[in-house]
Amino acid sequence: MATSSKIIGIGGGVGPMAGVKLQEKIIENTLTGGTDQDHFEVYHFSRSHDIPDRTRYLLGEVDENPAEGMTRTAVAMAAAAAVFNKKIVLGIPCNTFHAPQIFQRFELLLQQKSLGITVLNMIVETGDFIKSMLPGVREIGLMSTTGTRKTGVYRQALEPAGFEIIEVPLSIQGELHDSIYNKVWGIKAVSPVSGRAGKNFQKYAGMLLEKGARAIILGCTEIPLALPEKRFEGIPLVDPVLALARALIREADRDKLKPYAY
Amino acid sequence: MATSSKIIGIGGGVGPMAGVKLQEKIIENTLTGGTDQDHFEVYHFSRSHDIPDRTRYLLGEVDENPAEGMTRTAVAMAAAAAVFNKKIVLGIPCNTFHAPQIFQRFELLLQQKSLGITVLNMIVETGDFIKSMLPGVREIGLMSTTGTRKTGVYRQALEPAGFEIIEVPLSIQGELHDSIYNKVWGIKAVSPVSGRAGKNFQKYAGMLLEKGARAIILGCTEIPLALPEKRFEGIPLVDPVLALARALIREADRDKLKPYAY
Repeated sequence: MATSSKIIGIGGGVGPMAGVKLQEKIIENTLTGGTDQDHFEVYHFSRSHDIPDRTRYLLGEVDENPAEGMTRTAVAMAAAAAVFNKKIVLGIPCNTFHAPQIFQRFELLLQQKSLGITVLNMIVETGDFIKSMLPGVREIGLMSTTGTRKTGVYRQALEPAGFEIIEVPLSIQGELHDSIYNKVWGIKAVSPVSGRAGKNFQKYAGMLLEKGARAIILGCTEIPLALPEKRFEGIPLVDPVLALARALIREADRDKLKPYAY
Repeated sequence: MATSSKIIGIGGGVGPMAGVKLQEKIIENTLTGGTDQDHFEVYHFSRSHDIPDRTRYLLGEVDENPAEGMTRTAVAMAAAAAVFNKKIVLGIPCNTFHAPQIFQRFELLLQQKSLGITVLNMIVETGDFIKSMLPGVREIGLMSTTGTRKTGVYRQALEPAGFEIIEVPLSIQGELHDSIYNKVWGIKAVSPVSGRAGKNFQKYAGMLLEKGARAIILGCTEIPLALPEKRFEGIPLVDPVLALARALIREADRDKLKPYAY
């Protein structure tokens, strides 16, 4: 097969394992003739130390916009791509990074620097993925960090497209966030996922089902580590990182996109 | 925790999933305070299309030394690291790439280009890993591609260190190689691993046990996908990519290396 002239960039480190999962999904969703050489050219930069926690920024607990560190990542990535005179289509596998205060700032910085990088919006791609894979499904459960929830990232992108967003009760949101972030037993701190975190996410999925969700968005990249299956009690689980992986392939070379079905 | 001034580089694409597994193991073996920001800075370049199959090169079926494409990868990686004025410690998660004809050529090219990149030798690190984790174990089973076997990559590195290398009968080697490379059911072509390839590697492991192996090196980065556990019938399975991940952490910041035990 011919090689794409576009490099797929992963703006990783947010968190580090989410970038790994995105790259894995790019490989798994690429049609090849069965050899290594058919795969896409992928540059994955994981610069966690330079990118503050997205939720903490949105809550005003840290000053620097995570868009700044991700822009430094993009500059380094562009320097590498320039060696081969290639352009980059970039994905950032972090839901909270897509809050408008962060993502729009990043888009602006990227434009100002003229790096030859196009960034995809994972939230928009997730909506398009649901429309295409689960036609007719409108009631969408959503589990996310407190930052993603408070800034309404998914509501703003998906409600105008006709989706109804269903979340866990507000009284439970703090516990859900803690199941990702707790430094002793949360998903970010413990690999593989602790029993406590795993059980919690099954509980939240059950709550969303009871509230009428017909599909559930795992709206923080750590959550699929706790709910790795395609479905939960028969209901499709939507992994935005999968939607992003497939969108990156589509942009780099549509002919190499493997079929997918629930 | 303080940030390391060294970037960990992954010379990926050989094959693409091996790079992903290396990066995953770096994350899993890093001691952190439980936040994203404690993780290493990692640049992972997966440039499969530019790096010919290593076994085919060793067998004379392709002309260009895979060291050439990996050097182009290193040049691009160095261009990115230069943005932050940092040095790189590099790992290449491909056993066959460590055949002297390829690896020594790569070391030479790297030196000539003065890129500020130090490359670790995964095979040497695997020997050191076994010595440290499995003291007293000398009889080592080895499964590898035909290229790795024919060039004696592991024999040359490990026999002088006192290890005895045990391989599958030569009459079986072709089938073992095919279980990695077969375009219909081999590990490189099918993800997750096909039942046929999975069963084959259990069979080969059993053969090595019968021949007296007290540990088994999974000497092609695809094999751990078929044998993902720490042990097979009580015998430790040694994943060179894990040894490499831990060596990269050690070189970047020894204090962040998580304890490990069989």
